[in-house]
Amino acid sequence: MGGVVTVAIQGQRGSYSELAALRYFGDAKTIRLETFSEAFASVGKRADFAFVPVENSIEGIVTQVCDLLMGRSLHVVGEGILKIEHCLIVNKGVSIKDIKTVFSHPQALAQSREYLESLGVEIVPFSDTAGSIKMIKEKGLTDCAGVASNHAAEVYGMDILQTNLENHSHNYTRFLALSRKEQNATGKGSKTSLWFATKNAPGALYKALGCFAKNKVNLTYLQSRPVPGKPWEYRFYLECQGSIEGIGLKSAVMELGKLADKAKVLGSYTHARMPAGTR
Amino acid sequence: MGGVVTVAIQGQRGSYSELAALRYFGDAKTIRLETFSEAFASVGKRADFAFVPVENSIEGIVTQVCDLLMGRSLHVVGEGILKIEHCLIVNKGVSIKDIKTVFSHPQALAQSREYLESLGVEIVPFSDTAGSIKMIKEKGLTDCAGVASNHAAEVYGMDILQTNLENHSHNYTRFLALSRKEQNATGKGSKTSLWFATKNAPGALYKALGCFAKNKVNLTYLQSRPVPGKPWEYRFYLECQGSIEGIGLKSAVMELGKLADKAKVLGSYTHARMPAGTR
Repeated sequence: MGGVVTVAIQGQRGSYSELAALRYFGDAKTIRLETFSEAFASVGKRADFAFVPVENSIEGIVTQVCDLLMGRSLHVVGEGILKIEHCLIVNKGVSIKDIKTVFSHPQALAQSREYLESLGVEIVPFSDTAGSIKMIKEKGLTDCAGVASNHAAEVYGMDILQTNLENHSHNYTRFLALSRKEQNATGKGSKTSLWFATKNAPGALYKALGCFAKNKVNLTYLQSRPVPGKPWEYRFYLECQGSIEGIGLKSAVMELGKLADKAKVLGSYTHARMPAGTR
Repeated sequence: MGGVVTVAIQGQRGSYSELAALRYFGDAKTIRLETFSEAFASVGKRADFAFVPVENSIEGIVTQVCDLLMGRSLHVVGEGILKIEHCLIVNKGVSIKDIKTVFSHPQALAQSREYLESLGVEIVPFSDTAGSIKMIKEKGLTDCAGVASNHAAEVYGMDILQTNLENHSHNYTRFLALSRKEQNATGKGSKTSLWFATKNAPGALYKALGCFAKNKVNLTYLQSRPVPGKPWEYRFYLECQGSIEGIGLKSAVMELGKLADKAKVLGSYTHARMPAGTR
């Protein structure tokens, strides 16, 4: 046994998810899957962990991941934050004046719009960031560039013509590490993920949040998501400070369990620090 | 002046947004724009209203619309609900056995996956539902189909080979009508949209929701969204029962205004009824 851990991600070799997973786990083997659903399903089988984006500081919630956290039975065991820094990437020897077309995921293109418009090139959406680099490499295109991470440039052996294309410098994505095995953190910097569904009654959400407030548990993130098959009913994904092994949060969750329709702790883990700025 | 109202939508002729706008406004002229941002910007200029999707009963929040509601100064003056019913659409004379490829927006394809897989055809993502129908029409493709509304088939003069492709029958999209002019509804079925930003302090959201609970105002929808430029800080879009002209909600908003960093009422309007089922 032993050896490096295997980590399932959604995305290609060179993707932001792969970069984030390698930063978090260090020497890991990534298993790259097409969908978040496949990444969740592979944990405990091909993969020891999944590492998935839960929110971005500009775009907000990653809805599919939020729904999978509530719909599958994986434990949240860790958190990582990646600064998103888009690079303009080309085949070796290509220079800025050669570029006629730029490919990337629509979100990366939108986040780099000001810079790309200054180039006066055609902007073409592609299914993902790293995939655009791979395609430009494989086709040997010499009048095209892609927008992706510096990790993508390294992985595919390409040149970076410009870094930090993004319009906003505060662009971070927060990832969660998921495992089949529970391993609750208890230290001072612990936080906890859980979800609950309220009874469909007036003031239900207010009362649910009251369980945390009365026990002096600070919420850090709250999202409502549709209940499948029940239009205009919602369940809530919540993150808060503290460990589920701590007295305050333990009491809050016990009280929540009594008044909610459903309440489930997903895990306690050490909260991620913001990455050191590189600009 | 007189004449029909002009309504800005995001999407093409034949899109679900256009269908929803025509159902809501009756005899209206739609102005079809590429982005939600353009639809918001056109109100009070080229358009009398915008009609935009705020949430879907399966996919949840439409994040861009939620952010624009909080970032622009339009008033919410109405609500409409459209049942999403995907149809398999082809050029006239094409039959099911001719189809080799099906195009549509990735979400519509995912929502029709079970049916499409039973056909054993190639499934290819396209930028939008109505756009796939338009493209198949313009290119005269006889071995391709698109997935879109029956409205798209009508608009482009195409045949519907199959209706109700969707995996889940509870697929509804909720739209809001937006105007430059305030026109608060006050009747019994009124509801209100507003947004607020809490001080970054423990229990701030709980206290904010307390303003509504104490005044017996029922929340129907709550979403948190990132504050632009401030990673991991949030503002909240909220919908509740009642009119801003009513005593309960008026008191709630006054109390909220005192403890929140910012609080803004977007408008009171008559809540939409669920459309009559067609299956």
